[in-house]
Amino acid sequence: MLSNFTTGVVMKYGGSSVANPKKINEVADRIVERKKKFKNIVVVVSAMGKTTNNLISMSKEINENPSKREMDMLLSTGEQVTISLLAMALASKGEEVISLTGWQAGIKTFGHHMKSKIGDIDKNKIENYLEEGNIVIVAGFQGVNEVGDITTLGRGGSDTSAVALAAKLNFSCEIYTDVKGIYTVDPRLFSKARKLDYLSYEETLEMANLGAKVIEPRSVELAWKYKVPLYIALNTNDVVGTVIRGEGNNMEKNSITNISVIDNILLVNIELKTKNTEKINNIFVQLGNKNVNIDIISQNKFSDNNYLISFTTTNDNKIIVSEILKEMNLNFNFIENVSKVSIIGNAMRTQAGVASRVFEILSKNNIEFHQVSTSEISISYVIDDFNVKNIVEILAKEYNL
Amino acid sequence: MLSNFTTGVVMKYGGSSVANPKKINEVADRIVERKKKFKNIVVVVSAMGKTTNNLISMSKEINENPSKREMDMLLSTGEQVTISLLAMALASKGEEVISLTGWQAGIKTFGHHMKSKIGDIDKNKIENYLEEGNIVIVAGFQGVNEVGDITTLGRGGSDTSAVALAAKLNFSCEIYTDVKGIYTVDPRLFSKARKLDYLSYEETLEMANLGAKVIEPRSVELAWKYKVPLYIALNTNDVVGTVIRGEGNNMEKNSITNISVIDNILLVNIELKTKNTEKINNIFVQLGNKNVNIDIISQNKFSDNNYLISFTTTNDNKIIVSEILKEMNLNFNFIENVSKVSIIGNAMRTQAGVASRVFEILSKNNIEFHQVSTSEISISYVIDDFNVKNIVEILAKEYNL
Repeated sequence: MLSNFTTGVVMKYGGSSVANPKKINEVADRIVERKKKFKNIVVVVSAMGKTTNNLISMSKEINENPSKREMDMLLSTGEQVTISLLAMALASKGEEVISLTGWQAGIKTFGHHMKSKIGDIDKNKIENYLEEGNIVIVAGFQGVNEVGDITTLGRGGSDTSAVALAAKLNFSCEIYTDVKGIYTVDPRLFSKARKLDYLSYEETLEMANLGAKVIEPRSVELAWKYKVPLYIALNTNDVVGTVIRGEGNNMEKNSITNISVIDNILLVNIELKTKNTEKINNIFVQLGNKNVNIDIISQNKFSDNNYLISFTTTNDNKIIVSEILKEMNLNFNFIENVSKVSIIGNAMRTQAGVASRVFEILSKNNIEFHQVSTSEISISYVIDDFNVKNIVEILAKEYNL
Repeated sequence: MLSNFTTGVVMKYGGSSVANPKKINEVADRIVERKKKFKNIVVVVSAMGKTTNNLISMSKEINENPSKREMDMLLSTGEQVTISLLAMALASKGEEVISLTGWQAGIKTFGHHMKSKIGDIDKNKIENYLEEGNIVIVAGFQGVNEVGDITTLGRGGSDTSAVALAAKLNFSCEIYTDVKGIYTVDPRLFSKARKLDYLSYEETLEMANLGAKVIEPRSVELAWKYKVPLYIALNTNDVVGTVIRGEGNNMEKNSITNISVIDNILLVNIELKTKNTEKINNIFVQLGNKNVNIDIISQNKFSDNNYLISFTTTNDNKIIVSEILKEMNLNFNFIENVSKVSIIGNAMRTQAGVASRVFEILSKNNIEFHQVSTSEISISYVIDDFNVKNIVEILAKEYNL
C-alpha cells in the first residue's frame, strides 16, 4: 500500500476487472474501502471486457480499413459506458461520485489517432469535484486533441492515463489487475516464482520492455519521470502487491531480480559477400519505413568476406520482412520458434561477472543461444522455444528467485 | 422532395434504420445518392436498434434509480457508436466524411438531464467541415450543457436535433423512418388510409399532439417556428413521402385531414358534494406536483349539489392518481380501456358544423363517448376501446380519408 506517500490516490481497473455489472459492483466495493483511508480518490477504468473487440468487429463489417479518427470516436465509447456504470454503482453505495470522459477530465493529447500521447492535463475540473467530496471516475485510454477530436492512447493507454493523472495531481497510483503483483519469473514458467514486494522504476521498466506483461513500459517511464509511487496488485485487493518507486535500495541484496520471456520471436539471418555498410544501413531503413520493429542486431564475419547480419523482430512481421529482403535481392533465412529470455537486476551494474556466470550455466547445460544482447541492468538471450522452460528453471534456482 | 427550397439538407435516420452494420451500409447508399443533388449534407442519427435498451438494462442491474446525469453519460454513447460506423461506411464508398458528437457539433443545451432542451448551436465547426466538402454526421439526441456535462434531449430528441440543425444552417430537413409518410388515418386502424403529400405545420403539430406517432410534436413546433421545410419518408427513399411546410393551402379542399388515436387512456371521475373551487384547484395542484399530466378536463352538475369532475391521463398514472385522491378523501372511480379519437383539419376553423356533424354520426351509430374537447382545428372524443376501429372507419369514409 502507498497510503503514506501522498494526499490522494488514482486507482486503475482494466477491462477484465469491470467485465460485467457484477464485477463493476465489486470494484465499487473496493473503492468504498479505499475511500475510508483517502479523502481524494480518482478512479481510471478501461472498457468492459469484450466491448472493444465487439466494436472493432462491427467496424470491420463496415469498412476493412476505417479511418483512425473514426476508430477513436467508436472505441472511446467503451470507457464512457464503464465510467457511468461505475458511478451508478458507487452512488448506490451512498458515495458522492461523478464520471468524466477524457475530454471532460482535461486530458489533452497530441500525435496520431489510435496512438496519441498525453500533452497535458487541465486538472481544474477534477480538483473542484474532489474538493466537493466526490470520487472522480475518469475514462482511461482517451483524451481530446488540439482540434477537438476524441483520441485514444493506444497500447497500455489506461495505465498511462492513470499515471499521468497521478503525476499531475501529485497522487500515488494503484494499478489493479488480474495478477497478484510482479513476480521474479512468470509463474506460468516457474511455479516457485516469488512475488516481489518492491521494485525500482528502472528494473520495472527493463522488465516491461523485456516481456513482463503486467504493465506497459510507457506508463512505467512516465511514473519514473514524475516519481509517481506505483502499486500493482490484484483487483480484489486481498493480497499485498508490488510497490514500485525510487532506485530500489532493497534490491541490492539480489544480483538478479527477474527473468522475463518474450515468445513469438523471428530471427532473421542475412548473408553478405562484402561488408557494405551502405547496403546494411539500407536494409534497416527499408524495414523502418514499413514499421517493422527491430530488436537485437548482431553482425559477424563467418569466413573470408562472408558476413552474417542477424536481427530479431516479432513473428507477425514475417511476410513483410520476406518481401523487403527479396526485393533487395538478399540471401536470407528465418529461424522461427525462438524466444528471448532476459535476466534483469539493478545490481548488475555494480556486480561484475554476472554475464560470464550465465554463459557458464548455459554451456554447462548444453543450451545453445542464437544471439545475446546486454544493457546496463539486463542480459537477453535468443534461444529455441523448447529450451525456455528449462533455462528459466535453472536460472531461477541459481539466482534464488 | 425538398431540393428546391434550400442550399443543403439535414437527413435524419432513427434507430431502426441503423440497427445493424448492413442497415448502416444501406443508409450510406441513400446518403451517397442524395449527395449527388446537394453540396451540403448533414446527417443526424440515433443509437442503433436495441442499444439504448441494452444500456438501460445494464444500468438497472447496477442501480435501480441511477442519477440522470450518469444516464446521459451512458446513453449518449449509443449515437456516438452510430456516427462513427456510418462515417466508416461512407468513407468506404469514397465520400469525404466526418462524424461529430453533440458537444463537438456545438449543440448547447439547458434544463434537466434526460430531457434537456437545445439553447443554441455553434455552427462554425459544421460549416467549416461542409466547406471542405465533407458529409457531416452528427449524433442526435445529445448535447452539452453550460457546465460541460453531456446531456440528452429526451423523447423525440434526434428529430429535434435534426430540425434544430436545419434551422440554424438554413437547410431543409428530411426525417427518414420506417413508415412511408403521414397518413390520413393510422393504416393499422383503417387499411384504406391515404398517404398525404402535403401538410401544414399546424395540422402536423395537432396530429403529433393527438397521437400520430410518426413525428414528435416538439420537433414540428421547432420546424414551424423557424419555417424549416420538413419531409417525412421511408428510410429506403423509394416512395414519395409527406412534405410539411407553410399554412397548407392544399389542405382547404378537405374539411378533415386526419384521424389520430391515443390509447391507454385513464378516465378519472371525481364526485363532489359542493362546488368548492379551492378544493378542485387543489386536486390539480397535487397531481401536478407528482408530474401527472392531465389532458381533457370536464365538470358537470349531475343533480342538486352533486358535481362531477372528470379528467383523462395516461393509464400508467393509475396508482399515483389513486394514492393522491385517497389522501384527499375524495370519492372517485376510474374508467379504463378507453381511447381518445381526434379528428383534425386545418379547414375546421373556417367551416362551421363539423363538430355537430360528428355528434350526429356518433349518435346515429349508437357510439357513446365519455368526454369531448375541441381546439381550433380538432375535436377529440374519449370512447371505449371496443368502439375505436368502428368509429375510425365510419369517420374515414365520411370524410373521404
